[in-house]
Amino acid sequence: MKEIKVIMVGLGNVGQGFLKILETDHASLMQNQGLDIKVVGVSDLRYGNYSEPNGFQVTSLLKALENGNLEGMGKKDERSSTENWIKSCDAQFLLEASFTNFTNAEPAIQYMRAALSSGKHVVTSNKGPIALFYSELATMAKQGGLQIGVEGTVMSGTPSMALGINTLKAAGITSIQGILNGTTNFILTRMEQGNSYQNALAEAQKLGYAEADPTGDVEGYDAAGKVVILGNLVMDRPITFADVERKGISGVTLQDVELAKAEGKRWKLIGTLSIDNGIVSASVKPTLLPTEDPLANVGGATNAITFTTQHMGKVTLIGAGAGRVETGFALLSDILAISKTNEPSNWRKQ
Amino acid sequence: MKEIKVIMVGLGNVGQGFLKILETDHASLMQNQGLDIKVVGVSDLRYGNYSEPNGFQVTSLLKALENGNLEGMGKKDERSSTENWIKSCDAQFLLEASFTNFTNAEPAIQYMRAALSSGKHVVTSNKGPIALFYSELATMAKQGGLQIGVEGTVMSGTPSMALGINTLKAAGITSIQGILNGTTNFILTRMEQGNSYQNALAEAQKLGYAEADPTGDVEGYDAAGKVVILGNLVMDRPITFADVERKGISGVTLQDVELAKAEGKRWKLIGTLSIDNGIVSASVKPTLLPTEDPLANVGGATNAITFTTQHMGKVTLIGAGAGRVETGFALLSDILAISKTNEPSNWRKQ
Repeated sequence: MKEIKVIMVGLGNVGQGFLKILETDHASLMQNQGLDIKVVGVSDLRYGNYSEPNGFQVTSLLKALENGNLEGMGKKDERSSTENWIKSCDAQFLLEASFTNFTNAEPAIQYMRAALSSGKHVVTSNKGPIALFYSELATMAKQGGLQIGVEGTVMSGTPSMALGINTLKAAGITSIQGILNGTTNFILTRMEQGNSYQNALAEAQKLGYAEADPTGDVEGYDAAGKVVILGNLVMDRPITFADVERKGISGVTLQDVELAKAEGKRWKLIGTLSIDNGIVSASVKPTLLPTEDPLANVGGATNAITFTTQHMGKVTLIGAGAGRVETGFALLSDILAISKTNEPSNWRKQ
Repeated sequence: MKEIKVIMVGLGNVGQGFLKILETDHASLMQNQGLDIKVVGVSDLRYGNYSEPNGFQVTSLLKALENGNLEGMGKKDERSSTENWIKSCDAQFLLEASFTNFTNAEPAIQYMRAALSSGKHVVTSNKGPIALFYSELATMAKQGGLQIGVEGTVMSGTPSMALGINTLKAAGITSIQGILNGTTNFILTRMEQGNSYQNALAEAQKLGYAEADPTGDVEGYDAAGKVVILGNLVMDRPITFADVERKGISGVTLQDVELAKAEGKRWKLIGTLSIDNGIVSASVKPTLLPTEDPLANVGGATNAITFTTQHMGKVTLIGAGAGRVETGFALLSDILAISKTNEPSNWRKQ
């Protein structure tokens, strides 16, 4: 049995989704994977930093989070900063699931630096630091013999990054096309069913798919962040937001959608990366797809990605793009993947 | 740089597909993966066993295979048996790509036993030994600290096994549905386009998708073999061919297909595994799918698989199901995956 000690920063939907899985699956993870995963520290701007070197009782922790009060859960750390708390913890992994900030990735980027500089792998669903600072983080990780798990940054726990980074990279990926934002795909699907953009958006907001200010989704910023991540990690090109041509769906009318339908086609918000003569081009924009395209048939809030490769032709993966447990599962799958590869030489002795 | 020495048994389409990839990608595999893959032995019933401890020159080897004459390629081994030759080779991997035999898996199973008993990982596209003897092979591998790579046994190099065995198993797979045979999917697709079963089959034979005796494909034996493999390796249930309810497509008429089409549905030959109250049920049979099902939209010789999971809902993977280079890539991706995990303690010192 291998003991895996993790600390968590960010105890919102994703963090709680991870804890829910750990609550139900801890025994089977021990039995099937030989891993005893213990949460030895939790942190959230709302609560502060709490440590429990022997591992929190997960059900109690979830209950405390439901009640919005962590008092009595382990030892509250009164250190000057969360970064210092992260460094002080005896753990092999930081699970970073605080809020996404595409402007400067604060404060998550500081947490990740603190983890990597103190010998901890970073596993995250947070797109900000990965889209903005991946190159720096990868260098730090390499120097420390550590790894960065990013499955949850694209398509939640649907293993798009495992596919792109591990299995398919060697097949020679020449382009990527994806439905990378569930909210906009839900809106376009409802429009195909005869609803106006405004009504479909209102429905998405009511269902919790879209925020009160839906700009990040409908104008393609969220999808563009994922395109930047895919460009850096799967295509190995250091692209930034400025390299992504971006157009959202707010200009797509019911008439456009119906005209496409009459022609046997569908509008989808497609994130694209392609390499031509060594030059990468990247975009997010409404795209007219023929119904034979596997992406055209992906409806509702589901996401999908097609990798076009030299040796394998097109490989398409379809699955959840968001969700509490689905993104929590991304964190778990990164922990499992990293635990299976060689242990870094500088893991603290347990 | 890590030196990876492989020997190959079976130099037909798959073996040559692997060599073609190695020919074009050897330099990039060194640069990107840090692996120097050398073919130090090749064997085929047609030619005998040849060794080249420093590694064959791959382009010359491919040319010799095209000419059907390996004389002068390394040293011809006159040992009593291929099994003994396998044992004698200094290599870390056996790539087994000889012909599929669903009756008793001979002779491939003997080659695999020889490899595992002499400290070599086995990487294979050969469904016979994996469908019939996986449990024995897995035990041998475990005892030797070795691994068995099986990506090519289902959906060629499309990473269905990586997904099912590695990333998605921890999500709690409750059922699997797949289009696991490209020939029958091609025939059904051509029937939807108005062709009779007989004409579609003749076309598949002309294109090389179906053999002169098409029984293995059209009666569902090939797909059933893949269901057995998925049951054993992904669902962890020791099922056999006898557990798979099997019905082929030869009874599907043009009228059936057109009737389905009129109802917005499609006939597909679907392999299914599901667990209900701990009992696994397995089948291969023509199945009527609504067009919203991602599998319904997979046309031609393409394959696809849907994993239904506890934590991630449905995850669907669509890609090539056969092909020389595509299956050759499966061998390569298994080598890469196995090389990234811990080295077995008993690898021969180089």
